[in-house]
Amino acid sequence: MTTAHDYAHQNQERFQQQLIDLCRIPSVSTDPERKGETLQAAEWVAADMRKIGLNNVQIMPTPLHPVVYGEWLGAGPNAKTVLVYGHYDVQPAVTSDGWDQDPFEPTVKDGVLYCRGSSDDKGQMFAQLKAFEALLANGKPTVNVKFLIEGEEEIGSPNLGKFVAAHRELLMADVCVISDGSVIALDRPSIGYSTRGLMYLEMEVFGAKQDLHSGAFGGIVHNPAQALAEIIAQLHNPDGSVAVPGFYDHVVALSAAEREELAKSAWTDAEWKEATGVPAFWGEKEYLLHERIGARPTLEINGFVSGFYGAGSKTVLPGKALAKISCRLVANQNADQIFGLVRDHILRLAPPTVRVEVRQLASAGPALMDLNSPYMAAASRAYEKGWGQKPVYERGGGTLPILADFQRELNQIPIMLMGFGLQTDGAHGPNEHFVLEMFKRGIDTAICFFDEVGQIK
Amino acid sequence: MTTAHDYAHQNQERFQQQLIDLCRIPSVSTDPERKGETLQAAEWVAADMRKIGLNNVQIMPTPLHPVVYGEWLGAGPNAKTVLVYGHYDVQPAVTSDGWDQDPFEPTVKDGVLYCRGSSDDKGQMFAQLKAFEALLANGKPTVNVKFLIEGEEEIGSPNLGKFVAAHRELLMADVCVISDGSVIALDRPSIGYSTRGLMYLEMEVFGAKQDLHSGAFGGIVHNPAQALAEIIAQLHNPDGSVAVPGFYDHVVALSAAEREELAKSAWTDAEWKEATGVPAFWGEKEYLLHERIGARPTLEINGFVSGFYGAGSKTVLPGKALAKISCRLVANQNADQIFGLVRDHILRLAPPTVRVEVRQLASAGPALMDLNSPYMAAASRAYEKGWGQKPVYERGGGTLPILADFQRELNQIPIMLMGFGLQTDGAHGPNEHFVLEMFKRGIDTAICFFDEVGQIK
Repeated sequence: MTTAHDYAHQNQERFQQQLIDLCRIPSVSTDPERKGETLQAAEWVAADMRKIGLNNVQIMPTPLHPVVYGEWLGAGPNAKTVLVYGHYDVQPAVTSDGWDQDPFEPTVKDGVLYCRGSSDDKGQMFAQLKAFEALLANGKPTVNVKFLIEGEEEIGSPNLGKFVAAHRELLMADVCVISDGSVIALDRPSIGYSTRGLMYLEMEVFGAKQDLHSGAFGGIVHNPAQALAEIIAQLHNPDGSVAVPGFYDHVVALSAAEREELAKSAWTDAEWKEATGVPAFWGEKEYLLHERIGARPTLEINGFVSGFYGAGSKTVLPGKALAKISCRLVANQNADQIFGLVRDHILRLAPPTVRVEVRQLASAGPALMDLNSPYMAAASRAYEKGWGQKPVYERGGGTLPILADFQRELNQIPIMLMGFGLQTDGAHGPNEHFVLEMFKRGIDTAICFFDEVGQIK
Repeated sequence: MTTAHDYAHQNQERFQQQLIDLCRIPSVSTDPERKGETLQAAEWVAADMRKIGLNNVQIMPTPLHPVVYGEWLGAGPNAKTVLVYGHYDVQPAVTSDGWDQDPFEPTVKDGVLYCRGSSDDKGQMFAQLKAFEALLANGKPTVNVKFLIEGEEEIGSPNLGKFVAAHRELLMADVCVISDGSVIALDRPSIGYSTRGLMYLEMEVFGAKQDLHSGAFGGIVHNPAQALAEIIAQLHNPDGSVAVPGFYDHVVALSAAEREELAKSAWTDAEWKEATGVPAFWGEKEYLLHERIGARPTLEINGFVSGFYGAGSKTVLPGKALAKISCRLVANQNADQIFGLVRDHILRLAPPTVRVEVRQLASAGPALMDLNSPYMAAASRAYEKGWGQKPVYERGGGTLPILADFQRELNQIPIMLMGFGLQTDGAHGPNEHFVLEMFKRGIDTAICFFDEVGQIK
């Protein structure tokens, strides 16, 4: 351990008190009535950045909540630069959601800090900032750093892509680190190295010009709910794979080494069964359950509606039917291209007895990091030294649109997902909390990561 | 024309005034606040039955609205007996539904009576009563008659089946006539000789124990919306027929003579296209459009719902999906047996990856009258003489549960559907009306029918 670690340990209580002060600010980005508090949190973060010695600290406006930026480039132009991403905004929370306390009155109990935002993402983001404070307070860091702390993550980062594109020079770095997630367990650290992309569409099937009496017209009209079901039933093959031609064309295959690595952190079938409660699993049999989620693209029906679905019976022949359909994508699939393939396939399947419309609603790219990059090795060593345990690598099934934004705009920058939270922290739910031991280990790990990156030639 | 017809013509204006008085009573059977008015209508009908000379007139209680009964058995035990069914209750109506007037303030304009219930069924039922008044006032009728006028038709006749079963002796007759429908046009009378039965079920498909995150679990769980669609897609064959084994086993085939008869009243394809607006028709190609509706059973998706279907996108993996499914049945299919066949087929199709429940919600039998019976001939001659035109025969696509009730309890009694209204009368909609010329022709036709039945040996 370094003097920076000593500093962090000696100042741990002050860091916790600061985190408590930050958590107390109800920076709920989705709530127009909290616009003032959201700005207050941005100002609080900017003030701390200045206090610890970052330069060029700015509160940079976007159409809604500003981005807080601060940098330290004192390691010089030949040193590596780390871009740290985090967010100061939080999910909504009211006591009646099931909280045991005022969600914005931080409470520490048995080494756990309870407050909305404590884990997602104030605690994790702040660990990065405190790590760099410790480095700055103990000599000259060997890396440059740029902090980008946004205020719209919980509403889908609607302005971040444009912000990054407009500030490419300012933000350019060698590696990006994001602490806004979770490790498997306190004693089982893990690094995420991929996220899935997303393509979301809605399909609408039109039959008769209005709802009809099923007795007066049933038998001559192609029921649009039936036609929609018939189309949906043709979107998968019997083996669970997606039946859209070309769907898998650009999918990066799992290597044997990766499969071996992923197996280390995989849930057992019993754990998956417990989590889902399904009578039997489904999907591509040649892939293990965690591989289907992390490394394979999917096509899901997110919902549908047609005609009558209330209590009792109504003999209507519906005039239309609607389905929401989305694909989770993996590297190197392109969301817009996949939309085109799915749309064309649906329109090919559409019978002449109905009219079908397909509309794209959202798209986000997948991300896949190179497990063999020196930054990945640096992140692994950082957990090993700072956290105290060698991490395993994980593929996430969810989507982080900002990853694709960063990679597209910043020369395919490698992004390290170094979570310091736990899946059980209650992010987005009641009684969100952050284990203070993880706050401490997070700071230690972040210090190590900055050090490790500084040694990369 | 007989003296009874002369009497009816001479009293036409009084009959109209009586009908206006009856229509003014808002006997909305579904509205608990109209229970008093609904009873008032029953009492009005009973009073008129007594006045015209029916015997044994009773207001017979049911769990909700009473049945009005009256009879005249003076033709003696060797004469035929006609059971007349009608109803004195009406659909709800408020001006704001789109009425041009107070729906319960009868208005006559250009020979048309506007009021809720004027066509459905007060005007048509009352034509039958006035016809028998005319016969009674002009000598001794040659038939016995029993009037059963109920007050719960607009809420699905929940108590009629039990009522008929409990009064089989009282109601036993040789033929039943129902004037509660429509002819094709004023100058194109028609007789319905079949109705379709109904089997209604709901199917629920359960996947995970709750809604899941489509990123965290998509790929290993059989999406219940998809599984439901896959089941629905297997309920029909590519030729439009129902794929449930045994579904058609008991279907009475259309004879060549019937097909020829039905063709006389059939809409053109252009008329069906205009009514539905579909890009192309669908269904069993070996049957003409009106045959598919009137003479073939169907299986329809009345609606479904699962997951998210609002504006925008939500990446949910739904925990369950629900569909409402119904079959229109033809003679001699049995609704409960068909439920068993469809349920068993669905459960056979259900994959082991989900749990499927199938629940029966309703059932009603089909009805098919013998076109060669003497009563059918009597009905035809009645229109020819009384209405002034030879009628065509029609198969209806809808369901009249009471027909199956009557037939089951009353020795398979033949039932004549002799409508005096028009499809354009606005029954159940705003501005319901009844063409007074049809009221007059209905009375003339009903007089003829009683006479004709009286001559059957």
